[in-house]
Amino acid sequence: MKKKIISAIICLFIFAGTFAQELANFRRAPVVSPEIGEKTVTFRISAPQAKLVRLYGSWMRSSDSSLNMSKDTADIWVVTIQRPPEELYTYNFIVDGLNVNDPNNVFLQRDGTRYLSVLLVPGDLTSNYFEAGKRGNLRKVWYSSPTIGTTRRMYVYTPHGYETGKESYPVLYLLHGGGGDEDAWATMGRACQILDNLIEKKLAVPMICVMPNGNPSQEAARTTLLQERVLDRNSPGFANLYINSIVKDIIPYVEKNFRVIAKPEARAVSGLSMGGGHTLSVTNEHPGVFGYICPLSMGIRDSQTDIDEKLQGVKKAGYKLYWVACGSDDFLFEMAKSLDAALTRNGLDHTFFVTPGGHTWANWRIYLNTFGQLLFK
Amino acid sequence: MKKKIISAIICLFIFAGTFAQELANFRRAPVVSPEIGEKTVTFRISAPQAKLVRLYGSWMRSSDSSLNMSKDTADIWVVTIQRPPEELYTYNFIVDGLNVNDPNNVFLQRDGTRYLSVLLVPGDLTSNYFEAGKRGNLRKVWYSSPTIGTTRRMYVYTPHGYETGKESYPVLYLLHGGGGDEDAWATMGRACQILDNLIEKKLAVPMICVMPNGNPSQEAARTTLLQERVLDRNSPGFANLYINSIVKDIIPYVEKNFRVIAKPEARAVSGLSMGGGHTLSVTNEHPGVFGYICPLSMGIRDSQTDIDEKLQGVKKAGYKLYWVACGSDDFLFEMAKSLDAALTRNGLDHTFFVTPGGHTWANWRIYLNTFGQLLFK
Repeated sequence: MKKKIISAIICLFIFAGTFAQELANFRRAPVVSPEIGEKTVTFRISAPQAKLVRLYGSWMRSSDSSLNMSKDTADIWVVTIQRPPEELYTYNFIVDGLNVNDPNNVFLQRDGTRYLSVLLVPGDLTSNYFEAGKRGNLRKVWYSSPTIGTTRRMYVYTPHGYETGKESYPVLYLLHGGGGDEDAWATMGRACQILDNLIEKKLAVPMICVMPNGNPSQEAARTTLLQERVLDRNSPGFANLYINSIVKDIIPYVEKNFRVIAKPEARAVSGLSMGGGHTLSVTNEHPGVFGYICPLSMGIRDSQTDIDEKLQGVKKAGYKLYWVACGSDDFLFEMAKSLDAALTRNGLDHTFFVTPGGHTWANWRIYLNTFGQLLFK
Repeated sequence: MKKKIISAIICLFIFAGTFAQELANFRRAPVVSPEIGEKTVTFRISAPQAKLVRLYGSWMRSSDSSLNMSKDTADIWVVTIQRPPEELYTYNFIVDGLNVNDPNNVFLQRDGTRYLSVLLVPGDLTSNYFEAGKRGNLRKVWYSSPTIGTTRRMYVYTPHGYETGKESYPVLYLLHGGGGDEDAWATMGRACQILDNLIEKKLAVPMICVMPNGNPSQEAARTTLLQERVLDRNSPGFANLYINSIVKDIIPYVEKNFRVIAKPEARAVSGLSMGGGHTLSVTNEHPGVFGYICPLSMGIRDSQTDIDEKLQGVKKAGYKLYWVACGSDDFLFEMAKSLDAALTRNGLDHTFFVTPGGHTWANWRIYLNTFGQLLFK
């Protein structure tokens, strides 16, 4: 009897809660979108007054390939497409010319300043992008950066078992690209899921992964509303400000506050695009700090006259792995090829991992999923 | 010379990065929105083909109060309003009947399954909703819940200095409402910012704050895409499943893995709406576990016949603070008044904190900002 009463009360709580939170103005229609079938994916949006609704997805060649949707009897616009190959895609509707997210898809991610609806098509390639059985934790950590002169935020992934164990771990420093911030690899990059899966499948060594913010003007992602500083990009120290802070501020913080193996052979650095540039700069300017060097979708210009001297420094200091990756359609592919050539010319053992595709998160997830298996072995 | 070359390379990296990430289909217009002035706020959205664009904000009485926007010469729809009182508001545009978020505002938050653009108007009331100078960290933690039978996720806030210090802290268990999840208090509730500010201003004792997921069918927020289980809500144990997991799984995990004071007088529990119900249930069913009991926007039905017996149990076990809060316009205000009456009838010292307004995040932030100052003193 008591249990029945408690049940009834709890039900009322749930009822009350469900109708809470200022719902009045946001009537939720029972619209399912995206609906991933065996061979098709269906997208739906309620837009009764719209004249023309189109679908654009990142699996299309360009926005010119957007698909017209058609309106059903319930004023829901619908389009069904052939299920695209397994991948994590982003998409949006174009309602009378206006880009809008899918209001019925809770899987929305920020990519820089934009929010994009996400379609994650299951398959072998993407199996590591879903939640693993054993999952590591993610911390949003504020640390002091005397080099840059502010408190700054980074994300730190700790592998499953970190909290309960006593062992020390190697660390991957994973750097985002231009327009990104400390959140980018954890959301668009699926870094936690990829590492969880690789570690659970014993394809990767358990590791900590540190994702800093590579914009020295920012303390943290713009979503914090923190004022950005105006930094003089022409000042002598600017170019090295962030990479020096990695070595002088971030690594010491991590090695003091986490159970890590504080040795070069237990430190990896990788980054995409601008973060690939940071990867090159930090290893060129601080040779011997990182045993694993993985610049992604980045390279060097042939006009960089001091590259041989720098790479000789890296060679002399020693490293375990130099792994360069780029898409063959990437607009920086020529620069990546120049880096490959410079590494060869200077006698540095390395891998040049070339994939189809361009300067995309699709590639960066594939790269992490690939080089993650090579680290610390 | 070398520095110049490095600068040039870094600049190129930044250039490359900025144009990365599949920007082609999302041309960013130089539209500023929202623009918070001294006395006004201006909202803007580019929607060249729209016939009618309206603005709805949570400061309005209802969606009927939505404001028409007007189109300027550059096809930007604009409306300027008198600056509303300091508060964290959500808003959206209504473009030809379709609710859309502000594409130029990076401050977007999820409230359950909906994403809402946020307008944070500065002022005394909201000063604690902005980032403090000294900030604690936030962890997304996976823990084992034998009671519910799955791995589950919670957020754990640790105060500034936790990582570098050695002291142990009291813990606030902070529960979300219906439709919410472990992310709700950290985003809509601004819990980290409020606690950071209160602690920095020495208005609150440094504390850890644990934000679990109150939906036993979920391992974590739906954004993880994890399959939800179907639980039999009519099964005898269901009503107490979650509250038992707080006592049997969550508290032991926290007390094992964090430096906490494992005593009732160092444990507080609070929650809003459904989480207020959980607060009542967990303290009624497990008297003596929590020294601080703060149900928000919730209460009891007069038909709950066993409430006196339950509250006598709470009284007998002892507690430090019983703090009930509700808005006078809340649809659960009568239930909150019944709780207040039952506490009085049973001789339990308590506070009934009544504010204007209803069942809203505005109130729940105010409540945390208020009772947070009373805990563990």
